[in-house]
Amino acid sequence: MAENKGRKILVAVDEGEESAYALSWCLNNFISPRNSKDTLILLFAKKPLAVYSAMDSTGYIFSSSIIASMERYGNEVADRVMEKAIRMCKEFSDEVKVETMVENGDPRDVICEVAERLMVDILVMGSHGYGLIKRAFLGSVSNHCAQNVTCPVLIVKKPKPGDAAAH
Amino acid sequence: MAENKGRKILVAVDEGEESAYALSWCLNNFISPRNSKDTLILLFAKKPLAVYSAMDSTGYIFSSSIIASMERYGNEVADRVMEKAIRMCKEFSDEVKVETMVENGDPRDVICEVAERLMVDILVMGSHGYGLIKRAFLGSVSNHCAQNVTCPVLIVKKPKPGDAAAH
Repeated sequence: MAENKGRKILVAVDEGEESAYALSWCLNNFISPRNSKDTLILLFAKKPLAVYSAMDSTGYIFSSSIIASMERYGNEVADRVMEKAIRMCKEFSDEVKVETMVENGDPRDVICEVAERLMVDILVMGSHGYGLIKRAFLGSVSNHCAQNVTCPVLIVKKPKPGDAAAH
Repeated sequence: MAENKGRKILVAVDEGEESAYALSWCLNNFISPRNSKDTLILLFAKKPLAVYSAMDSTGYIFSSSIIASMERYGNEVADRVMEKAIRMCKEFSDEVKVETMVENGDPRDVICEVAERLMVDILVMGSHGYGLIKRAFLGSVSNHCAQNVTCPVLIVKKPKPGDAAAH
C-alpha cells in the first residue's frame, strides 16, 4: 500500500462531534496501527476574536481583562480539543506518528492554507464545523475546502441515530 | 485495519481523466493488494438521452434508427469506461474483488441513490464529471454527492501539471 511511502494526513479538528468521528473513521480505515510511516497532522483553527475597535455593538468598551479572558478561553478550547484528539490517536495505536498545529484564523482559510503549504497527501474533515445558521450564510467549511484544496479530501459525516447507512 | 471487516467501496467512474485518477488513488491508498476483504463497486451513470417527444429543437423528428444509434453509443461508452476501470483494478492486484454497475440517470442522483441503497462504507469520486459550462449551472457532481450521501466521501482531484501539491 502507498502508505508505506509515508503519507502526510491532515485532519482538521474542532470541538464538534463530527470532527471527532472523522478522526476516528480515518484512524480505523486509513492508517495501519503497526509500522506505519504515515504522519497524522492534527490541525485546530482558532477563530479570531471579533473585537472591532475593542467595542461591542452596545458601545461598551471591552476591558483588557475581558479580552484576555476570551483569549484564554480560546486557548483552553484548543488545548482540550488537541488533548482529546491525541488521546484518540494513542488509543488507536502507540506507534502512530502525530503532530499538532494550532493556527489563528477562519477555519476555511486556515485548513486550505495549511493543506497547500505542507503539501499533504489527504485532508480529512467532518462535514460540519460551523453551526447551522453560520453555515447557511458561509457554506460549510468542508464544502469550501473540497473546492479549494488540490489534494484529495475525505469528508466524513457522523451518522445520525437511525441512519440506514450508519456503519 | 477496519478493511479486514470487508468494506464496500463505491467508486463513481466516467469517461473523464479525473475519475480514472480517483480510482487509481483509491487503489493505491485505500486498498490492500493482498488478502483484502473489501469489495470495489465501480458505478457508471449513463446519462439519459434528452429526447423530448422524440423531437429536437429544430422540429425534426429523430428517426428510430438515430435514437437506436445514440443508445448504442451510450452503451459503448459505458463498456469502454468499465473495461478501463476493471483493467486498472486488475493491474493493481489480481485479488481485488470488483463489481460493476451501470445505471441510467443523472450521475448526481444515481451516485447518491446507489450509495444509500448498497449502504457503502465510502464513496470515492473525481472532483469533476460534468463539463465546465454544465458545472457552472448544476454545481459539481462531487459537491452535490458530498452534501447528500450519509457515508464518507473521498473527492480526488487530478493534479494539474505544475501543481505544487502534485503527489
